[in-house]
Amino acid sequence: MTRFRTLLDSRRLHRFNARVPLDKLTIIGAGLLGGSIGMAARARGMAKRVSALVRRPESVAECQAIGVADEVTLDPAEAAACADLIVLCTPISDMVDLAKRTLPHLKPGAVMTDVGSTKQQLVAELTPLCARAAVHFVGSHPMAGSDQTGPGAARADLFDDTVCVVTPTSETHADTLATVNDFWAGLGSRPVVMPTDTHDRLVARCSHLPHLLASALSRRVLDAEHGQQQAQLCATGFRDMTRLAAGSPVMWRDIIGSNRDDILVAIDEFADELGELRGLIADDSPELIEAWLQQAKAARDNWNNSAATD
Amino acid sequence: MTRFRTLLDSRRLHRFNARVPLDKLTIIGAGLLGGSIGMAARARGMAKRVSALVRRPESVAECQAIGVADEVTLDPAEAAACADLIVLCTPISDMVDLAKRTLPHLKPGAVMTDVGSTKQQLVAELTPLCARAAVHFVGSHPMAGSDQTGPGAARADLFDDTVCVVTPTSETHADTLATVNDFWAGLGSRPVVMPTDTHDRLVARCSHLPHLLASALSRRVLDAEHGQQQAQLCATGFRDMTRLAAGSPVMWRDIIGSNRDDILVAIDEFADELGELRGLIADDSPELIEAWLQQAKAARDNWNNSAATD
Repeated sequence: MTRFRTLLDSRRLHRFNARVPLDKLTIIGAGLLGGSIGMAARARGMAKRVSALVRRPESVAECQAIGVADEVTLDPAEAAACADLIVLCTPISDMVDLAKRTLPHLKPGAVMTDVGSTKQQLVAELTPLCARAAVHFVGSHPMAGSDQTGPGAARADLFDDTVCVVTPTSETHADTLATVNDFWAGLGSRPVVMPTDTHDRLVARCSHLPHLLASALSRRVLDAEHGQQQAQLCATGFRDMTRLAAGSPVMWRDIIGSNRDDILVAIDEFADELGELRGLIADDSPELIEAWLQQAKAARDNWNNSAATD
Repeated sequence: MTRFRTLLDSRRLHRFNARVPLDKLTIIGAGLLGGSIGMAARARGMAKRVSALVRRPESVAECQAIGVADEVTLDPAEAAACADLIVLCTPISDMVDLAKRTLPHLKPGAVMTDVGSTKQQLVAELTPLCARAAVHFVGSHPMAGSDQTGPGAARADLFDDTVCVVTPTSETHADTLATVNDFWAGLGSRPVVMPTDTHDRLVARCSHLPHLLASALSRRVLDAEHGQQQAQLCATGFRDMTRLAAGSPVMWRDIIGSNRDDILVAIDEFADELGELRGLIADDSPELIEAWLQQAKAARDNWNNSAATD
């Protein structure tokens, strides 16, 4: 099955790369991800026209100057008109509202996807909304990002050598899935297909949990009690381990809210792991501590090596 | 007192920089830290001669080729003879043994320090050992490092813009402390003086705890149960959050063993912090979650900005 899908995808990808561009690609929201999609699609000739819907009047000129799209507009109807593919690139809490405002203006048979970091809730809401407008929806989550936000941080190569999860349901048409897979592959990403619940469980572990650990570490180590003396001993390891804590609290509040159950499980699993180590330290068991650390190193080295040779 | 020390230190530093080099500086162990000390001291003209004691015969030629010292030897007596300042740069578990082997060959009045990551145990053992040999000891912990190990990773600029903790006790002579402070300042580091127990408590929080979190995260996320599907969703955030887990299990086993009580407290504090967050998520309290994340971001941003402008 995997092999067949790969063959199928590579044929479609070939067809896509053989210059049958979309007539019109529309980006809803032109921040880091939306802006980068627009820039990458234009750089790779993936659409005859790229349109971007933005919220603030001052964003129009900024996005035009940066070149994230051929047309930048504040009007959902204008953005949606004649689009073949529309990508929701706003914070997840705004996506359903923006879908409702653009769907009436989309042509029947258009394909919609999104870039949200969690998928179960969003896909469950957007799939029937789109179906009622005769628009085909399938969710996406490009595993690409940056510390920076906004269109000024957008880059045409943001998706190179990254994975993009695509999350079809039992209702998803094969052609819709193929279109969205091809789209991400065309941007330089590697599409990986999995169900929404699997996606949310896995990203709770490898993306949401690390963010929360970075935040907890920042809060506890840099607390007022220990002051400047503590802060000046924080070096490069601490810097790396807390970088994620600088992310947007509002965005992460929404991510947490949309993936509560899986995040709670991930926290509990992690607490168990740390509890196991605590027991080994309390027991003063150097051999077992070394073996525990060795397994961590082996897992990390193995992942790092395979990621490097992918 | 702090102001007076700063004045005193800056006078001494001036004197030091005014080219009154040590006659002989000896490095015991020439890995990343020892090698970098040797290279920095030679580059900055801090000693007329730099000598390095190494363990393996093949290290002699390697260290000579890299230029970590003027003389590289396998003989503790030769390394120690006539040294004014001797720096223990081996893993902490070897330091007491190497001190015992070099102390009989040091001249009375020589100064010894070390680069160990924990201080209470080590300083308690080395201080009386040195005193019996009429050698003055004070502990150090340069907060500098790298993912790489060994003399091949050594760099003359490793200590630039870093902090080095120096840990005198009630028995430490003022001149010994000044010599070691001047030495680290001469290498490009900023010496920070604090008691051994304060040091160990603070590094348990900001250095040892982050390492253990990175290891626990690697173990749990990259476990066999979730396999390749999980591994391919691990992106740059996960990479940063687990980098420390690639460190030496033997070295970290020893660090943990030498700072057990403080590390257990740091783990418990962290577990409390994570437990607090877990409660907010379980209660589905978006405002409180956002405030918790906001405090983490503020602490991290504030630290990062002050570190950048130091």
